[in-house]
Amino acid sequence: MSKGLDYDTLNENVKKTAYAVRGELYLRASELQKQGKKIIFTNVGNPHALGQKPLTFPRQVVALCQAPFLLDDPNVGLLFPEDAIARAKYYLSITSGGLGAYSDSRGLPAIRQEVADFIERRDGYPSNPEHIFLTDGASKGVMQILNAIIRNKNDGILVPVPQYPLYSAAITLLGGSLIPYYLEETSNWGLDIDDLHQSVVQAKMKGITVRAMVIINPGNPTGQCLSASNINQLLKFCFHENLVLLADEVYQQNIYQNSRPFISAKKMLLDMHAPINTGMQLVSFHTVSKGYWGECGQRGGYFEMTNIPSQTVDEIYKISSISLSPNVPAQIFMGLMVNPLKPGDISYQKFVTECNAILESLKRRAHIMTDGFNSCRNVVCNFTEGAMYSFPQIKLPPRAIEAAKKAGKIADVFYCLKLLEATGISTVPGSGFGQKEGVFHLRTTILPPEEDMPEIMASFKKFNNEFMQQYDGTGSSGYSRM
Amino acid sequence: MSKGLDYDTLNENVKKTAYAVRGELYLRASELQKQGKKIIFTNVGNPHALGQKPLTFPRQVVALCQAPFLLDDPNVGLLFPEDAIARAKYYLSITSGGLGAYSDSRGLPAIRQEVADFIERRDGYPSNPEHIFLTDGASKGVMQILNAIIRNKNDGILVPVPQYPLYSAAITLLGGSLIPYYLEETSNWGLDIDDLHQSVVQAKMKGITVRAMVIINPGNPTGQCLSASNINQLLKFCFHENLVLLADEVYQQNIYQNSRPFISAKKMLLDMHAPINTGMQLVSFHTVSKGYWGECGQRGGYFEMTNIPSQTVDEIYKISSISLSPNVPAQIFMGLMVNPLKPGDISYQKFVTECNAILESLKRRAHIMTDGFNSCRNVVCNFTEGAMYSFPQIKLPPRAIEAAKKAGKIADVFYCLKLLEATGISTVPGSGFGQKEGVFHLRTTILPPEEDMPEIMASFKKFNNEFMQQYDGTGSSGYSRM
Repeated sequence: MSKGLDYDTLNENVKKTAYAVRGELYLRASELQKQGKKIIFTNVGNPHALGQKPLTFPRQVVALCQAPFLLDDPNVGLLFPEDAIARAKYYLSITSGGLGAYSDSRGLPAIRQEVADFIERRDGYPSNPEHIFLTDGASKGVMQILNAIIRNKNDGILVPVPQYPLYSAAITLLGGSLIPYYLEETSNWGLDIDDLHQSVVQAKMKGITVRAMVIINPGNPTGQCLSASNINQLLKFCFHENLVLLADEVYQQNIYQNSRPFISAKKMLLDMHAPINTGMQLVSFHTVSKGYWGECGQRGGYFEMTNIPSQTVDEIYKISSISLSPNVPAQIFMGLMVNPLKPGDISYQKFVTECNAILESLKRRAHIMTDGFNSCRNVVCNFTEGAMYSFPQIKLPPRAIEAAKKAGKIADVFYCLKLLEATGISTVPGSGFGQKEGVFHLRTTILPPEEDMPEIMASFKKFNNEFMQQYDGTGSSGYSRM
Repeated sequence: MSKGLDYDTLNENVKKTAYAVRGELYLRASELQKQGKKIIFTNVGNPHALGQKPLTFPRQVVALCQAPFLLDDPNVGLLFPEDAIARAKYYLSITSGGLGAYSDSRGLPAIRQEVADFIERRDGYPSNPEHIFLTDGASKGVMQILNAIIRNKNDGILVPVPQYPLYSAAITLLGGSLIPYYLEETSNWGLDIDDLHQSVVQAKMKGITVRAMVIINPGNPTGQCLSASNINQLLKFCFHENLVLLADEVYQQNIYQNSRPFISAKKMLLDMHAPINTGMQLVSFHTVSKGYWGECGQRGGYFEMTNIPSQTVDEIYKISSISLSPNVPAQIFMGLMVNPLKPGDISYQKFVTECNAILESLKRRAHIMTDGFNSCRNVVCNFTEGAMYSFPQIKLPPRAIEAAKKAGKIADVFYCLKLLEATGISTVPGSGFGQKEGVFHLRTTILPPEEDMPEIMASFKKFNNEFMQQYDGTGSSGYSRM
């Protein structure tokens, strides 16, 4: 007889769930690393793992909060600047017993107020701290909200394709239905509202009620910044279809061009007229893991709920309470991120210099990478307008697709595995994010150190050339092109 | 038409879920606090919130890990001892980019090895680090495992009554069925195996397959330490019924007597003969939130899987990956907890002195509280052998039960609310944990500062006397006892 944790008796939704970012490619890369091969992990947006240094000031503040006894040490000023000491004292004063005490399950009230103030400055509209919940990273918030929405497989969630697979994974795990809508590669990964309508109509024909829509702006894996008119259109669409909009805006600091700045869904919504601005339900997500912070390992995030009834907010609060509280150190990072140093503060100049250096370098790397991909045979790539990823299309020759099939692999998995074995570059195949039938991509982060970038792109180009040579029918094998 | 996050369309399991530790009593206490009333929060095991100081050494290590640039500062030795500096360097060397980088989704391999070594020292049997996952607190691990097990409402989980409501909440949220088994208050909250059998038989009659059993040892809210023979019996029971045993052992450091030391389920299992020792599935949970650490706000925990097939371990790994990684600072705390300072280390003496002071004080508080409750009219209370809670039975007079009914409250909620309003002591009613029909309790932590304890118990006694006076029919109201 089977036991409770035997594979055959497990929750089917657990088994069905796929998560490509740490899937077959990642596991193979980890294996090769164990064998001594040098691996360049570009499979996940993890800046510090690729050498990005943490910003000094926030780390000073959190270190002092972890070691509050230092604040009584006469030598503390030798290692910490005055403004970090003051800020640490402030944060300790708003906890209920330092970093070792559980906070309220929604996070510390004073930090939720700092978040609300930040949103108000950013958007020009008031924000209610009672509708802001701090979370252990944005992913946890997304899962909490989807868990509240999804009842069964007849509840559909509109998700962009390609998408960051958190969404497909969470929807499968929660037993809902993912309703795909396609981003248009030829219009720089913009949304097509007609296509959205089509997706909803098709879902309805299958008996599925579409209840929410996900946008990722700036895009992951696609790197686009949505235009104001695009956001405007999709807000109207959500309102008319009674959808909750889940706006994943974790890359809002990562912008590498000026023509399409980041605009929050919240601001666009409140710019609109009644009944849309007061009626459309919106949940927006943010994090300390991205931007020029990249504090992934700390696990800090928040979500803000707009036009969500208070009875629902109470339910979400109740469910948060089961895990008692988000980790407190990351709540402090969130406070520091949304309420940074100001001109005149002792550490201001250093802080700004560090932030700018990171952002400027990311911008240059976005260019190096896009240009590098576009110089390769059978590869085309939109510019990374924002976020941390490059998502080139790889035009795989039919013989490569054939060879993949023989090897029992999806064609882009086959390509990415060969890339990994040849160069140590660990990417994620486009199929992990979804893509149109017969079209293939890979995702790489733009995070490798700037000085290594030329070599990485040269190594990619060499591999790609040989791969295309081998499978494109013009090589020495003598087979004619199919 | 309803929208996606309107209350009436929410996931029913979310709405049905109850979590008493932060329920009506907690909300009322928070309200009173806002109004300026002094509240003694004993509703949740949150030692630092009640004044317990963090252990110095681990905080020094984690502070240095947060601010690695201090390690290059010539003055670092003025604020940090050498062994903390060395340990911080070690931990930084095993991360993949400091505390700001995601770790493997199971946690850092070197820390999982430290956990495995700890378990081996504790139990005398090898432990496999590949079957140890670090988590954001033990609760998250429990939810992950229950999520893997529970498929639908016909899957039952045996849960002790009274129980820490994490279990009832998680099972409801995941759509499974809670199968209660009663702890015997008269035999110091021990398990009755016959009663367990009865619970399984009754579940089967309802078409429910019991798939797992939860034990909390030392007990929450009941404070008992299970005897070796009790654990032995229940392991055999689980084996014969094909149940996964979920052993919540987060209070294993909190032991306040010598006659029943903590014995892990893992050790008892491996002490047994084949096929039980190799066949029974066990998942054990631990945390940095309890013990003499009390680092609740850091959110660190682990679970160890014994006799779980590797295919299942892979599935659980995959699901962990969706949230990318547990927070890294708390992983360091876990490493420090399971691999503490050794005699001869510079900071050893201070560390041991701090640990002992906390544990000895908790032991004294356990006595003060038990004795205090037992000196009150209509109150009886088992001694807190372990954990952090006192769970006195309150023998409510029929007229109090009547008055509660009129007020639309469960009788113990009625009592606890009146206690809160009169004294500021915020407890959790026994009904939040489950109890036998017609029997009432409350749970309080033993965590208020030792010097405040006499006053708190006096204040409780005074309230209880007045309450009993009012409702026990012997007071001035003239009504005869019902």
